[in-house]
Amino acid sequence: MPWVSDENAPAFVDLYELTMAASYFARGMNEPATFELSVRQLPPHRGFLVACGLEDALAYLDGFAFAGETIDYLRSLGTFDEAFLEALGRLRFSGDVWAVPEGEVVFGREPLLRVTAPLIEAQLAETFLLNAVAFQTMIATKAARIALACGDRPFVDFSGRRDHGADAALKVARAASVGGASGTSNVLAGQLYGLDLSGTMAHSYVLAFPDESDAFRAYARDFPDGAVLLVDTYDTVEGARRAAAVANELRAEGVTVRGVRLDSGDLAALARTVRDVLDSAGCADLRIFASSDLDEYRIADLLAQGAPIDAFGVGTRLGTSADAPSLGAVYKLVAGPRGPVMKHSSGKISLPGTKQVYREERDGESLADTIALAGEPGVAGRPLLEQVMASGERIVPPESLAALRDRRAAAVARLPEPARRLDAVPDAYPVRLSEGLEGLVERLGG
Amino acid sequence: MPWVSDENAPAFVDLYELTMAASYFARGMNEPATFELSVRQLPPHRGFLVACGLEDALAYLDGFAFAGETIDYLRSLGTFDEAFLEALGRLRFSGDVWAVPEGEVVFGREPLLRVTAPLIEAQLAETFLLNAVAFQTMIATKAARIALACGDRPFVDFSGRRDHGADAALKVARAASVGGASGTSNVLAGQLYGLDLSGTMAHSYVLAFPDESDAFRAYARDFPDGAVLLVDTYDTVEGARRAAAVANELRAEGVTVRGVRLDSGDLAALARTVRDVLDSAGCADLRIFASSDLDEYRIADLLAQGAPIDAFGVGTRLGTSADAPSLGAVYKLVAGPRGPVMKHSSGKISLPGTKQVYREERDGESLADTIALAGEPGVAGRPLLEQVMASGERIVPPESLAALRDRRAAAVARLPEPARRLDAVPDAYPVRLSEGLEGLVERLGG
Repeated sequence: MPWVSDENAPAFVDLYELTMAASYFARGMNEPATFELSVRQLPPHRGFLVACGLEDALAYLDGFAFAGETIDYLRSLGTFDEAFLEALGRLRFSGDVWAVPEGEVVFGREPLLRVTAPLIEAQLAETFLLNAVAFQTMIATKAARIALACGDRPFVDFSGRRDHGADAALKVARAASVGGASGTSNVLAGQLYGLDLSGTMAHSYVLAFPDESDAFRAYARDFPDGAVLLVDTYDTVEGARRAAAVANELRAEGVTVRGVRLDSGDLAALARTVRDVLDSAGCADLRIFASSDLDEYRIADLLAQGAPIDAFGVGTRLGTSADAPSLGAVYKLVAGPRGPVMKHSSGKISLPGTKQVYREERDGESLADTIALAGEPGVAGRPLLEQVMASGERIVPPESLAALRDRRAAAVARLPEPARRLDAVPDAYPVRLSEGLEGLVERLGG
Repeated sequence: MPWVSDENAPAFVDLYELTMAASYFARGMNEPATFELSVRQLPPHRGFLVACGLEDALAYLDGFAFAGETIDYLRSLGTFDEAFLEALGRLRFSGDVWAVPEGEVVFGREPLLRVTAPLIEAQLAETFLLNAVAFQTMIATKAARIALACGDRPFVDFSGRRDHGADAALKVARAASVGGASGTSNVLAGQLYGLDLSGTMAHSYVLAFPDESDAFRAYARDFPDGAVLLVDTYDTVEGARRAAAVANELRAEGVTVRGVRLDSGDLAALARTVRDVLDSAGCADLRIFASSDLDEYRIADLLAQGAPIDAFGVGTRLGTSADAPSLGAVYKLVAGPRGPVMKHSSGKISLPGTKQVYREERDGESLADTIALAGEPGVAGRPLLEQVMASGERIVPPESLAALRDRRAAAVARLPEPARRLDAVPDAYPVRLSEGLEGLVERLGG
């Protein structure tokens, strides 16, 4: 079936990128230009974003080369002349890229990625870069919010079946890990990204046995180092009693049952009852896992109610970022051969000029960001964008997921409390424009 | 970078599918079992769903074989014994599949797909089948709603940059076409699925020229058979005046400007003003295209206001199904070696037994559906599920997208008006359970 691959990824492009490129080519307009990728504004309730997707963006740029089949396909459209098609076939990415590292916290209007390259190359990269960075940033952000709700309890990505296609689920597993998930249920994601795998059992397993206790006994024996038994196929409390009985019965065989999973009903009430059932049966060591349409809001609510849940499986609402399933990310021309440029369309003003973001930090707390012109003197703070490609070559190696997780954890922890709230208000974190940038906006008539 | 492919797709599976399979394998539990895939209930405002994703589901089952790298990876986990891993390496799908054809209209609780296969094969397919069918059905449904809002005006999928990864965008382009989109902006989707491509120009193109008229002139000359000029980079009405002037100026050269695109602001008011500007300038032949956060609700509202818009570009809200970004699809064991089975978890009762859906139709209108037991006598209507695989072999060829579009158009047209409303209430279309199914539910204690 059709899939995206490294080979055909350059064809993942909106048609207009190619028609514009053809027009630039025909007119010899291929001076260096600078585009910046940013998110217009934070979605509702978000006090911050976690940058993610850069690794895919760099892999794409690094391997950029149109496949022969794509050139043939474009020829078949009758829209492009042969000189342009030949140039496309030879095209490689030769530009410079600056970016905020994955795992760093960013805010609305701040450039996450800056591409300076011959106009045609920079333009053609738009569709793929936006797709990769916006989606993965959205999911890493959602996961970081879930991590805030969970506190010191772990959560796992269970979203594969409900994500927007199979590739989305891979990217979700990775971005969720950056955001704080301790693992994923998705085997292919585990294989490709080296993520820890996690899983329990499905209702179909229980139903495949004559009775629930038989199913529990079989599974616990087959995975004697720590099975998690799903107890809600028939009656949750009765299921918990049976799970405890099986755990006690099999202890003598050296079988350890790790816990039970609740997947329906009033999770707070059930968790309390099930905890009592397990404790009364001498199974205080069994942990309670919960799943079923969870997200940061529900987890926070469950824990606020004191629900004795030890770990969470989070699926659909993580993998689709259900309350904000898209980010308004844009990739805008900010400087051309004649200097900084600016679009004026109603309600969609973009910040002109090649920019840098500076973050002021004191005593382990982030205080405020300033969006400034790149190289603007006298702006306080730590610059967030780092150069990652020079003349088309990557100049920083891929980072480990552990490094990205650590960066995210530290960056979120440094945020002032209002920006970390699950119901953050817009501008909970102060982001200013520098004097130089304000002046440029004014000069260009913003 | 990591991608899903035909080779690694079998590893796109939740870990518990494999642990359950290992347990079944160790116990010799591999009798045929039947699983059915259905959507629990229609999302808010949906009066129907458009089945989609079957082609990918069948390609997956048809090519099912674990790659050696996956077996090696699973071995490295230390969870599975060698006998099971060897059996996994040899595993192919050998079952029967019945399905509702793509493009057909379906409702909550109705099986879209039924798999009867040795338990292990049927279980392992769960994650991929749910992912493929639920996502694509969700998007085809969204597109069909947009088609209802558009009436006889065309709309195009512009969603690629905002979809959940690059693969999601390919699937969106195909599912949107099934649902009624006349094309896509995504070149790779056009290449892989044979979809018509569509595109205009970006603000960056306009900004790359000294002034707007220069940009319009250049683009119109480079695409003399019908450029669409984006008029809102600076001031929309002024942009429309310039577009009309360029169209008039270049007519003598044999250049045809096809229209203008509005991408911001109050689209209804701007479309009226721009229509007047174009008409007054002798450009009644130029069409108006609109984009900017559109969906079925906004399009219906624009057209209800009489906005003179000729065609729509629909992006984010189509490609993410923004108001309902997931479908509660489930894949449930309905029959095992001991007959029909049924899960009882609170609020999540599943319908037991191998089922068929019958649709009663009269005078070109669909009247009601009956979910019945497969082979149950005396149920009125046309059966919706058809056998598509037998003993692991496809027995129906892939269908053309044109055929799927026609099926969707006819099926939506046959719906009673309340089910076609954009704000349909739950159960706008009657779906009943047959006597035989009611009896089975009762017998199993539902």
